[in-house]
Amino acid sequence: MGKQFSAVQKTYLTNIQDYLRNFIDLQYPAPYDEMRNIFYYHLGLRDPIEKQGKRIRPLLMLICAEGVGVKKDEALPAAIAIELIHNFSLIHDDIEDNGDIRRGKPAVWKKWGLSQGLNAGDAMFNAAFLTISSLGLQFPPEIYARAYELLSETCNELTKGQYLDMSFENQDRISIESYFQMIEGKTAALMACSSEMGALLGGVDRNQQKLFRKFGKKLGVAFQIYDDWLGIWGDEEKLGKSTVGDIRERKKSYPILLGLKSNETFRNRFLTKKMSDEMALELATALKISGIEKEVKATCIKWTNEALDILNILKCKHEQKEYLKIITNDLLIRSR
Amino acid sequence: MGKQFSAVQKTYLTNIQDYLRNFIDLQYPAPYDEMRNIFYYHLGLRDPIEKQGKRIRPLLMLICAEGVGVKKDEALPAAIAIELIHNFSLIHDDIEDNGDIRRGKPAVWKKWGLSQGLNAGDAMFNAAFLTISSLGLQFPPEIYARAYELLSETCNELTKGQYLDMSFENQDRISIESYFQMIEGKTAALMACSSEMGALLGGVDRNQQKLFRKFGKKLGVAFQIYDDWLGIWGDEEKLGKSTVGDIRERKKSYPILLGLKSNETFRNRFLTKKMSDEMALELATALKISGIEKEVKATCIKWTNEALDILNILKCKHEQKEYLKIITNDLLIRSR
Repeated sequence: MGKQFSAVQKTYLTNIQDYLRNFIDLQYPAPYDEMRNIFYYHLGLRDPIEKQGKRIRPLLMLICAEGVGVKKDEALPAAIAIELIHNFSLIHDDIEDNGDIRRGKPAVWKKWGLSQGLNAGDAMFNAAFLTISSLGLQFPPEIYARAYELLSETCNELTKGQYLDMSFENQDRISIESYFQMIEGKTAALMACSSEMGALLGGVDRNQQKLFRKFGKKLGVAFQIYDDWLGIWGDEEKLGKSTVGDIRERKKSYPILLGLKSNETFRNRFLTKKMSDEMALELATALKISGIEKEVKATCIKWTNEALDILNILKCKHEQKEYLKIITNDLLIRSR
Repeated sequence: MGKQFSAVQKTYLTNIQDYLRNFIDLQYPAPYDEMRNIFYYHLGLRDPIEKQGKRIRPLLMLICAEGVGVKKDEALPAAIAIELIHNFSLIHDDIEDNGDIRRGKPAVWKKWGLSQGLNAGDAMFNAAFLTISSLGLQFPPEIYARAYELLSETCNELTKGQYLDMSFENQDRISIESYFQMIEGKTAALMACSSEMGALLGGVDRNQQKLFRKFGKKLGVAFQIYDDWLGIWGDEEKLGKSTVGDIRERKKSYPILLGLKSNETFRNRFLTKKMSDEMALELATALKISGIEKEVKATCIKWTNEALDILNILKCKHEQKEYLKIITNDLLIRSR
């Protein structure tokens, strides 16, 4: 099964790469050369296919679409749109968070300057909507128009989540409820959009669409909590960024919020001390000893299991359901 | 006639203001207070209605829509979408051009910081697409989906135009053709979208839609050339920015490109000297003496007349055609 899925995954990745290349070449001929270069660079299209990123969102979307009977080629534009939204948000995030490195390379705004970086992000954002228009050739206008709606509803959640995330930086006390509100916008919304979009294209009834959405949302929350775990305990080599980075950068991630809430020593040190690498490592150890690292893992597993429960009752073809289980379990296993 | 149009214009402005306020209040309740504040501030919604900006694009759109038989209330969401796109682009432009002041007030990014400013711009961009979804209640899905398409095609032109504009900064020799390519994207595309969108909602045939588009495009080019004229010879008080500002900031505007092309003294001074206020005034005078100021006005009048020629053959109700003539002539008179 693992082998079979890997083979499927590889064809998806090739399809995604080819579509993106064709789209970009068509949209950005001379004199728009640097826009073309930015798109290629940020989307990793000149890197080997294994290094182009996991493409988890378009993968999720395509599998869901196939699971309800849509042909991959027909669903591809919507999958590309979702990947473009994800990537535009990274370009702008790097500017907003003053992030220099993305996927082991200089961030777009560091390489091309803030102005061209910002505008290329806008162009990539819009490119997602442009891509949706290709659905018009294959799907009835009701579905086609709803795809636009879904995408803009999702980006609304995305920008609101990003707003909350940035506003957390200046707040000392953030409730766990606020944290979940933030990640549901910033991360889970686009995963929820991916699975719902697949169901939408298949023309399944609204209740099933909502169930697909719920699956993607649970997966997205689990995904973000796992990412927060990685931000402190993840391997530097694997991530391309330094371990305990989130403590170093005083991010209000899930483990840190739990520490701020329940561990007064952690709270005082995190908020008041000048943060050295040693202090960050010490604080990471403190979170481990006090059981917070375990709690974070347990929460991730809880959301992943909820995703699996929904997956079980989805009306989705057997083969694709198995693929979705593989993706979900992969997350579960990694966070054990 | 002038009085009658002013009365019409005022109701439009009130409709636009009310729609924007309702939309923003609905989208950004607590905890999204600062997003709400940024939208209100940038769109001038707490300023007296006369100071909220000309709203030229939604006005153009609504008049075209009414001219082909669409009710104003039904067309309003599309008009709002266009105004939101225009305003998102200003928020991001100010960041990209390092612009501190917008409409006589600190720019959003100066007031709320770069990160929140950038993200609010993204949110406003997306809000345009969100607003389009309200068309779904009144129009058949074919028209509704095409409205999305038209908006994203327009934003594609917009970001490409912005790319060219910024890349001109580092180039000494820019052809007049490149300049027109740039302003057709950066300015005329959204005006063209406004008039085309009106026709689209009325369900007129594709050829008429194209003719409405052409009218808006010509008007947009004339509008930008007039704006370039204002950037050197405009009244400081009227604009809220200093006269000869474009020379001072070495913008590659139309009069400046003409100067660079045909006047060697201007060229040498513009490109090599440290630019003082006195030097900028001197260069503005040089452009006037060498006939370039007249040439710029003549070009503006040429494009405006072409717009009027198209207007004459548009299939548009008499009353609205008269309003469109008033808007167009207003530009023509101001640039004489």
